[in-house]
Amino acid sequence: MSKNGQNINDLINGLQSGAKLHLSRAITLIESQNKEDKLFAESLIENILSQTGKSVRLGITGAPGVGKSTFIDSFVFQLAQNKNLKIAVLTVDPSSSISGGSILGDKTRMESLIGLPNVYVRPSPAGNELGGVAKKTYESILLCEAAGYNYIIIETVGVGQSETIVKQMTDLLLLITIAGAGDDLQGIKRGIMEMVDVVFINKTDAIPESMKNNLILDLKNAFHLFPKKDIETQICSGSSLKNTGINELRTTIEEIFSTIKENGHLEKNRVSQKLKWMQNSFEQSIIEHIYLLPEVQNLKKLLLEKIEKNETSPLSASRKLLNEFLKNQNS
Amino acid sequence: MSKNGQNINDLINGLQSGAKLHLSRAITLIESQNKEDKLFAESLIENILSQTGKSVRLGITGAPGVGKSTFIDSFVFQLAQNKNLKIAVLTVDPSSSISGGSILGDKTRMESLIGLPNVYVRPSPAGNELGGVAKKTYESILLCEAAGYNYIIIETVGVGQSETIVKQMTDLLLLITIAGAGDDLQGIKRGIMEMVDVVFINKTDAIPESMKNNLILDLKNAFHLFPKKDIETQICSGSSLKNTGINELRTTIEEIFSTIKENGHLEKNRVSQKLKWMQNSFEQSIIEHIYLLPEVQNLKKLLLEKIEKNETSPLSASRKLLNEFLKNQNS
Repeated sequence: MSKNGQNINDLINGLQSGAKLHLSRAITLIESQNKEDKLFAESLIENILSQTGKSVRLGITGAPGVGKSTFIDSFVFQLAQNKNLKIAVLTVDPSSSISGGSILGDKTRMESLIGLPNVYVRPSPAGNELGGVAKKTYESILLCEAAGYNYIIIETVGVGQSETIVKQMTDLLLLITIAGAGDDLQGIKRGIMEMVDVVFINKTDAIPESMKNNLILDLKNAFHLFPKKDIETQICSGSSLKNTGINELRTTIEEIFSTIKENGHLEKNRVSQKLKWMQNSFEQSIIEHIYLLPEVQNLKKLLLEKIEKNETSPLSASRKLLNEFLKNQNS
Repeated sequence: MSKNGQNINDLINGLQSGAKLHLSRAITLIESQNKEDKLFAESLIENILSQTGKSVRLGITGAPGVGKSTFIDSFVFQLAQNKNLKIAVLTVDPSSSISGGSILGDKTRMESLIGLPNVYVRPSPAGNELGGVAKKTYESILLCEAAGYNYIIIETVGVGQSETIVKQMTDLLLLITIAGAGDDLQGIKRGIMEMVDVVFINKTDAIPESMKNNLILDLKNAFHLFPKKDIETQICSGSSLKNTGINELRTTIEEIFSTIKENGHLEKNRVSQKLKWMQNSFEQSIIEHIYLLPEVQNLKKLLLEKIEKNETSPLSASRKLLNEFLKNQNS
């Protein structure tokens, strides 16, 4: 299989050389909507599969204002001091899918990281829906691993629906929060808290020790109310601006990772993630196929007219469409 | 058609009587997973269709800490002083789907509203995924309208993915924010800002006039950078705790609503929303059907084993599953 004179072995060799340029090219290929590119990308992924799975996959989330960007800068910068680590930072940003990027822009972000030889930074791919954006991010993780990256950070933007999907592609989920976030705790809903494996309370240098301790206690109590999960949620604190507490956090993350690797939870979790990805991808392609069937297209057109005239409800029309599809199946 | 001795006409008559009890029963029916209930619910919706569409459908969103709950309390309380208005407040909360509800609980919320005869409050339905939760909320809007509610408020929880889906079921989207939310603006991404029709800057009583004016200017400038849409985004300010600015906001919302009603944008938007709901619902039922096909079930089982052994990638497995489905279609 070849593309623009480049065959798949060249691309795989390029990836394995570890050069960022080749990794970027491979990810761009994964993100392409072109049909030929898609087949090429699928073959590429299939070929590098045996070289994947050897990294720590860490999801990071946090509400606006908790200093998540500064935290990632500081955390990754410190990780990168260990030259045996190669760190990739990927972003899942569902809301950027409409016009791409935040209001204030990502331009000034991660500048300190981009120059480091063992750090690779890639912004969120464009896309029409979260599922598509996430699928590309999942495949990007595999490519980063094939390129020798052994610490992959997936950053969510904002607090909302994307945690669920980031949880589906990572081993551990880290929540960044701040002291005095009583209001924020209301915003970070139970469903998200249940997914969190490690909490980092940022900016604790700015508050009294007693307040910090109370917050840690409150969080511990909150986590004890949730159903027991594989990993007991750990709570760390410090200041990413002043580089305090970051090393302790790293140690905590590494300890959890070692534990789940040894007791088999890591592998079990990754297998169940892969099954989920298979289903997501299958469902997406089935839907694409069915909308191209002539009988579905024709009835859909008719039903749209009925809906416009308020002669049928959207949900009833949907059932008629399903029945038409089934009728053609059985004939 | 009847259920538990109750026929559909009784239920429709009950709804039209305007009693909250009947509305609650109808919504519970819509939320039921029981197959018989689903058919009954579909027939109910079909029958009340001609009585729907006569309300203002207002979506409300805002980051944690901006005082959204207090705002809704104050806003709805003031609306309810007009006895010709019947107001329903529904919630879309994707993150509550795992275990239901926020950490600090919704129990103490909207207490001042629940006692009002012309206000109906309904929390988010339980569900496994946002799409399902939203579908039920959309049908609940129709039921509220059939019960005579003419002002329907759909509240999102947190800031994230749910705005997109709330936008799909409402006429206008209101964003609550606060002064000094520079950090929050980074969190409220461009994609969400683009959907917003009205902004209410809350808690402006606590800041100097000049700061408020600067914030309004900043917001206006930000909105001018976005692609032009049907409705020019309006900016209001005040304090929901002190009940200031709420009446001006109401007037603004009513003016926008009148404008889009007269120029046809309201109707156009609602039709395109209905088409979207038809598609969403169709896609969901098609997927449910296909997973029950024996050939799909068998191959899926085989592929899952291969994925577990890392012999195939999730995405390649998904394509094999699609091919198996297609092969059986053509035979």
